[in-house]
Amino acid sequence: MLIVKKFGGSSVADKDRIFNVAKRCIEDYQAGHDVVVVLSAMGKTTDGLIAKAKEVNPRPSKREMDMLLSTGEQVSVAMMAMAMGSLGVPAISLNAFQVAMHTNSQYGNSRLKRIDAERIFTELENRKIVIVTGFQGVNKYDDLTTLGRGGSDTTAVALAAALHADACEIFTDVDGVYTADPRIVPDARKMDEITYDEMLELASLGAKVLHNRSVELAKKYNVQLVVRSSLNRNEGTIVKEDVKMEKMLVSGVAVDKNAARVSLIGLKDEPGIAFSIFNELAKKGINVDMILQSIGRDNTKDISFTVPGTELQNAMDALNAKKENFTAKQITSRENVAKVSVVGAGMATNPGVAAKMFEALYNANINIKMISTSEIRITVLIDEKEADRAMKYIHDIFDLASN
Amino acid sequence: MLIVKKFGGSSVADKDRIFNVAKRCIEDYQAGHDVVVVLSAMGKTTDGLIAKAKEVNPRPSKREMDMLLSTGEQVSVAMMAMAMGSLGVPAISLNAFQVAMHTNSQYGNSRLKRIDAERIFTELENRKIVIVTGFQGVNKYDDLTTLGRGGSDTTAVALAAALHADACEIFTDVDGVYTADPRIVPDARKMDEITYDEMLELASLGAKVLHNRSVELAKKYNVQLVVRSSLNRNEGTIVKEDVKMEKMLVSGVAVDKNAARVSLIGLKDEPGIAFSIFNELAKKGINVDMILQSIGRDNTKDISFTVPGTELQNAMDALNAKKENFTAKQITSRENVAKVSVVGAGMATNPGVAAKMFEALYNANINIKMISTSEIRITVLIDEKEADRAMKYIHDIFDLASN
Repeated sequence: MLIVKKFGGSSVADKDRIFNVAKRCIEDYQAGHDVVVVLSAMGKTTDGLIAKAKEVNPRPSKREMDMLLSTGEQVSVAMMAMAMGSLGVPAISLNAFQVAMHTNSQYGNSRLKRIDAERIFTELENRKIVIVTGFQGVNKYDDLTTLGRGGSDTTAVALAAALHADACEIFTDVDGVYTADPRIVPDARKMDEITYDEMLELASLGAKVLHNRSVELAKKYNVQLVVRSSLNRNEGTIVKEDVKMEKMLVSGVAVDKNAARVSLIGLKDEPGIAFSIFNELAKKGINVDMILQSIGRDNTKDISFTVPGTELQNAMDALNAKKENFTAKQITSRENVAKVSVVGAGMATNPGVAAKMFEALYNANINIKMISTSEIRITVLIDEKEADRAMKYIHDIFDLASN
Repeated sequence: MLIVKKFGGSSVADKDRIFNVAKRCIEDYQAGHDVVVVLSAMGKTTDGLIAKAKEVNPRPSKREMDMLLSTGEQVSVAMMAMAMGSLGVPAISLNAFQVAMHTNSQYGNSRLKRIDAERIFTELENRKIVIVTGFQGVNKYDDLTTLGRGGSDTTAVALAAALHADACEIFTDVDGVYTADPRIVPDARKMDEITYDEMLELASLGAKVLHNRSVELAKKYNVQLVVRSSLNRNEGTIVKEDVKMEKMLVSGVAVDKNAARVSLIGLKDEPGIAFSIFNELAKKGINVDMILQSIGRDNTKDISFTVPGTELQNAMDALNAKKENFTAKQITSRENVAKVSVVGAGMATNPGVAAKMFEALYNANINIKMISTSEIRITVLIDEKEADRAMKYIHDIFDLASN
C-alpha cells in the first residue's frame, strides 16, 4: 500500500515531536507499506521568517518571499530524514525542485500544475521513506513558489493523486472533523465520515481542519482523505465523495468570527454597478463573501457583503476611493460580526432546515443580520459576541451530539 | 564591467550589516556595472543548523546535512534581494538549482564541475543585481551539496571565472592580507599584492583570509582577486599570478596553532609501511601535514607528522587499531605545538632564507621540533606557547614592517 501522510508545523515543532512523527511513519514502513511524508515548516518558523523579511522590507517582493519561506519546509524534511536515520530507517528528503512540483508563477499563492512522480517512485523502490516539502513548488523559470494558506495539505493531496496513493492521511492537532468546535460546544461529536462538499463548506466557514484547496483537489481526483490527530491513535474522519446511504440532515455547525460587513447604500439601479464594485475589490485581492442585494427606495438599491475582518480597512479604502463611480450615497461597515453556518449533504432535499435553524436563534433571542444559502449550507450573520451561544442552540436543535 | 562580490556570514549577520552590504553593491550598480553578489549564511546560522541536526542524529547523513545547511544561504540571498528592493534597486536571488552550480556528489565537501551562466546573464541584461547562494551546489541526481570550508569563496571565484568577470572582490572583516597577524605582531603591514602561490601557502598555514580551494581555482582560471574589508573603504590586497618585478624575499609570516604531532617509532624499514599508515588516516578523512621520516636504529625508521589538533584523537584511534600492521614499536603524540612559516615567492632562488629564520628563533631561544620546506615556504614546528614570540622575531629579522 502507498500511504501519503501529512504533518503540520506544530507536529514537528521540536525534537520530541519530530521523533513522534518519525515513529508513526516507520510503523507503516515496517508493516511493508510505501510511505511518503509531507511536512510543513517547524512550529512558528514561517512566522519568524516573515518577521525577518519585514525588518528589511515592509513590502518584500513575493518572489523573494517565496525564496525565503521555502527554506522552512526544507529544514523540516532534512531534520525528519535525519531523525528516521537515527532510528535505523532509510529516509530521503526531497524539496520542490527535486520532486519536481511544477506550479504556475503566482508567487505566494501558486497553483500546482504537474507533479513528476519518477524520483519519488525510484526512492520508494529503494525502500526509502520519502519526505517531501509541503507548501512549495517550482515555476517554469525554475523559481520557487509557495502555495499559500493550507499549502501543505494541498501538496499532500496532489501527491496522493499523482502517485495513485492508496491512502492520504492529514494529521492535525484535533481528532478529526467535529459537528461543532468542541471548545465551544462541549457535546460536539466527531464525525466518522463527511463528504467533500460538506467539508468544503465547513472549511470555508472556519472549521480550520482542512484548507479548501486541498479538499477541492481531493474531490477532483477522488482522493479519499483521513483527518486524524498526530497526538493519539483515534480513527479520525474520512473525507470522501459519498457517505452512508442515509445522509445526515445536518452534519455540523461552523462559526467564523473573523468577519465584517460592508454596505453600499443608495446605488443607482443600473447595469454594471455590482461589477464595478466587486472588480475593484478583486483587483486588491480582497475575498468577498455573503453578497446580498436589495431594492432600496427611489430607483436605488443597496449591496451588502462580508469580508474577513483583517481586510475591512483595505476594502473601505478601495471603495471610498471610487465612491463616485459606484454612485453610492453612503458606504458603511460593521465589525465584530460572525458567520454561523449549518452544513449537510442531506439538506439539499429538505426544506425545513432553514426554519429549524432560525427557530434555534429565535429561542436564543439572537438577531439575524444577513442570510445566505447554498445547496448544502445555510449561513447567518450575527453579532460576534452571540456566536458561541448560537452554535450551542443550533447544535442542540439538530440533535448533533447523539448521532 | 562585471564585478563579483563575495560577503561572508558576519557581513550579513543582521539588518544593519545587510543594508551596509546592499549599499556597497548598489554603488557599483549605479556606476553602471553588472553586479553579482555571493553570500554566506547569516552570522552563526550554519552552526545553529548543525547543532539542530545533532539533536536528532549525532551522525546525520551527509546528504541530509547538505539539504539542511543549504537553507542558510538561501535565507541570506532572499533577505539581501528584499533589502535592495527596499532601496529601490531591482535585485534577484538565485540558489544553486537556479544558477545552476553543478558539482560532483561528495556531500559536505563537493567540487564544482560546471556553472551555467545563462540565467545570471539574463538577469544582468535585465539590469538586476544578481545575488547567488555561496557554498552550495547540485549534483547529477538533483541533490543539494555543499562545498565544505571556505565554500563561498570558491563559489565567488568559480562564478567570476564562468562569467568572465572583470573583478572578483572577497570581503572579509580584515583589510587584506598582512605580513603577519596584526593582533600578534603590531607592526605587521598590509600587502598591496601577493601571488596565488604565496597566498596558497599562507592560507594553508592559518592566515584565515582566503580558503585554499578558492585560491587554487583563481590560479587555475587566472581570476584576479581582491581581498578587502566590508567595514571600510581601504584598498585591500590583490591576489594574482605575478607581482612587482622585484619579488620580496619573504612576504609574510603565518602561524597555525591548531596542530599536534604524531610519531610512529621503530617501524620496520621495508616498503609499504608509509602507505599503510597514511592510507589508514586518509580513509578516516584526517588531513596530514609536515610528514618527516628518519632512519632509526637497528633497521627501523621513525615517521612523524602533524595533524589538526581537533583530529588528533581520531588519528591516534585509527593508528592504534592497526598498530600491529604498521610494525610500530611505539606511537606517541604531542599536543600544543604550532606551525610557524615564512612564505615568499622570491625565496625559491635565495638559499639564505632558512638560515635567517633559524637565526631569529635562536635569538629568541626557541627550540625547533620539526622542519619542513617547499619552494616558497619554510615551516617549523615549535611549542605553541612560543608561537607569538617566534612570529615577532621572524617578522623583525626580515624587516617586513618597512617594505
